[in-house]
Amino acid sequence: MNDFKHYLDTVNQAIASIPYPEKPSQLYEPISYHMALGGKRVRPVLVLMACDAMGGDSANALDAALGLEMFHNFTLLHDDVMDNADVRRGRTTVHRRWNDNTAILSGDTMLTIATQYIARCNLWPVMDLFNTTAIEIYEGQQWDMDYENRNDVSVEEYINMIRLKTSVLLGCALKMGALIAEADEQQANLLYEAGVNMGLAFQLRDDVLDVWGDPETFGKEIGGDIMNNKKTYLLINTMQLATGDDADELRHWLNDPFASRDDKVAGMTALYERLGVRQLAEDAIARYNDLAVAAFSQVKMSDDDKAAFIALSNRLAGRTF
Amino acid sequence: MNDFKHYLDTVNQAIASIPYPEKPSQLYEPISYHMALGGKRVRPVLVLMACDAMGGDSANALDAALGLEMFHNFTLLHDDVMDNADVRRGRTTVHRRWNDNTAILSGDTMLTIATQYIARCNLWPVMDLFNTTAIEIYEGQQWDMDYENRNDVSVEEYINMIRLKTSVLLGCALKMGALIAEADEQQANLLYEAGVNMGLAFQLRDDVLDVWGDPETFGKEIGGDIMNNKKTYLLINTMQLATGDDADELRHWLNDPFASRDDKVAGMTALYERLGVRQLAEDAIARYNDLAVAAFSQVKMSDDDKAAFIALSNRLAGRTF
Repeated sequence: MNDFKHYLDTVNQAIASIPYPEKPSQLYEPISYHMALGGKRVRPVLVLMACDAMGGDSANALDAALGLEMFHNFTLLHDDVMDNADVRRGRTTVHRRWNDNTAILSGDTMLTIATQYIARCNLWPVMDLFNTTAIEIYEGQQWDMDYENRNDVSVEEYINMIRLKTSVLLGCALKMGALIAEADEQQANLLYEAGVNMGLAFQLRDDVLDVWGDPETFGKEIGGDIMNNKKTYLLINTMQLATGDDADELRHWLNDPFASRDDKVAGMTALYERLGVRQLAEDAIARYNDLAVAAFSQVKMSDDDKAAFIALSNRLAGRTF
Repeated sequence: MNDFKHYLDTVNQAIASIPYPEKPSQLYEPISYHMALGGKRVRPVLVLMACDAMGGDSANALDAALGLEMFHNFTLLHDDVMDNADVRRGRTTVHRRWNDNTAILSGDTMLTIATQYIARCNLWPVMDLFNTTAIEIYEGQQWDMDYENRNDVSVEEYINMIRLKTSVLLGCALKMGALIAEADEQQANLLYEAGVNMGLAFQLRDDVLDVWGDPETFGKEIGGDIMNNKKTYLLINTMQLATGDDADELRHWLNDPFASRDDKVAGMTALYERLGVRQLAEDAIARYNDLAVAAFSQVKMSDDDKAAFIALSNRLAGRTF
C-alpha cells in the first residue's frame, strides 16, 4: 500500500481529467466547478487504500473511487441548496453562483454520473452497497432536518443521524475497495465497521472544532453551529444536563434573536465547559476511534497497512490534517 | 402479449405494493404520495409489452418497469420545483404541499430507489442504458430552461430538446424490455428507434393539445404554454414565419404583461391558424408516427404484437386516451 499523499495525487489527477461534455454548459460547468473546489478526498482515497491493502490493484478501483467522490459532492451541492449556504470551501456555492435550479439539475446529473462510475467495475455487490449507502445518507439528511424542529432529540438519535449522514459513506468506501480486491465478506465487513466508527469520531470532532477549533485550519468561521442553534452532540447533551441557572441561561441564548455573535458564542462555550460536555465529546470521540482501531487490527492485512489505517483514523479523530 | 389494460393493472398493483420504510416519514410520504398520483404509466407498460413481445417473460421485467416509472416520477418532482408548479395531475405538487427541500431530497431518494429496481435484473446493458438515458433527460431539461431565455431557437434545436427530455425514455423503455427478453442488439435498437419517434409524436401532440385540446380530457388548462410564452413547436415556427402585421401582433402578445388570458390565447391561436403552423405540427406528428410504425413493422415479432404497438403509437400520436 502507498501513502495517503500518493493516492490523493492519483485521485486529484483523475478528477481533473474527467471528460465532461462541452454542452449544455449550464449543466456541466457547475459540476466541474464544484468538483474542483477540492476537499480532503478522504472517501476516494479510502477506496484505493482498502483495495491495495486487501491484495487488489487500486488501478481497478479508481472508477469506483471517483464515483464515490462524485456522489459525495452531489450531496454537498444539494445540501447547500437545502441549507441556503453561501460558501463552500471558501468559494461561492453553486446555487448562489448560478441558481437553485442549476444546483438541483447539476446535482441530479452528478448522482447519475456517480452511478455510471460505480457501474464500471461490473460488480453487483458494489452497486448494491452504493445504492444502500446512498439511501441511508438521504435518511440521515432528513433526520438532520427533522431535528431542527425538535427540542427532545436524544444522544442516541443524534449518533444514529450522523452515522447515516456521514459515517456509512466512509464504511462504504473501505468495503468497496475490499470488494473490488475480491476480499471475503468477513474482511470487507470488518473494514466497513472500522470506517463507520472512524466516521463517527470524525463527525464528533467537527462538532468540537466548531467551538474550540483554530479558525485558520478549521476552514469555517468558529461558532457557526452555536449561532444556528444546531443540535450538535454538545448542545443535545447540554439540553439534557442543564438545570437551574444553567437552564435559564441556555434558554436565553437559544431564544434571544438580538444576542451578539461574540456574546452568544462566548456564553455557550462557557456553558459547555461548565457542564463538562466538552469532555463528554472527547470521551465519545476516543471511544469510536478505539472501535475503529480495534476493527482495523482484526483485518487480515500487513502490519504496515494496519498501522497506516490506524494513523489515518487517529488523524481524522483529531482532525490534525 | 397481453393488452395495455392488463399490463397497466400489473404496474398499478406493483406500485401500490412498493414497501416504503415507515421512517423518516417526511422522506417517504412524499414519494408514496407522488407515485399514487397516477398517470398513464406508459413507460413501465412499454417495458412489459416489449419483454413479452420479444419472447421473454414480463414477470422478469417488472422491477425494471417500476424503476423506470420511479425515475420518471423523480424527474417530474424535481421539474415541479424548477418550474415552481402548483398542480400535478389535479393534485398539489410535492414542493407546494411540503416544501422545496422535501421535494429535492425525496426526489434524490427516488432516483436511487429507481436505480435499485433497475439493478435487480442483474444486466449491465440495462443499467448502462438507464444511466445514459437519464443523462440525456437532464440535458434535455437544461436545454429547455436555456431556451426560455433565447429568441432564436431553431426547429431542429427544439426537436433535439424534446427528443432528449421526453422521447429517449420511451425508446429506453422498449429497449429495456427487449434486453431483459434477451433479444438481439438489432431488434432492441429497432424498438428503441420506434420508441423515440413515438415519443416525438407524443410530445408534439402535447404542444397542439395545449392550444386546441378538450379541457375535459387534456387534464391541464388550455393555453398554459401560450400564457408562459413557452417555446413550443408552434411558437418557434411562428417566430420564424411571421412577417409584417403578424410579426407586430406576435411581439405584442409576447411582450404585453397586461394582456388578458382570454385575449392572448385567442389572439395567438388565430395567429397559429393563419400562419399554418397548426398544420405544420400535424404534419410533423404524422411523420414521426410513420417512422415509429415503420420501425415497429421491421421488428421480428408476431403480427398481433406489431398491430398492438402500432395501435398504441397511433393513440399516443393522437392522444385519444
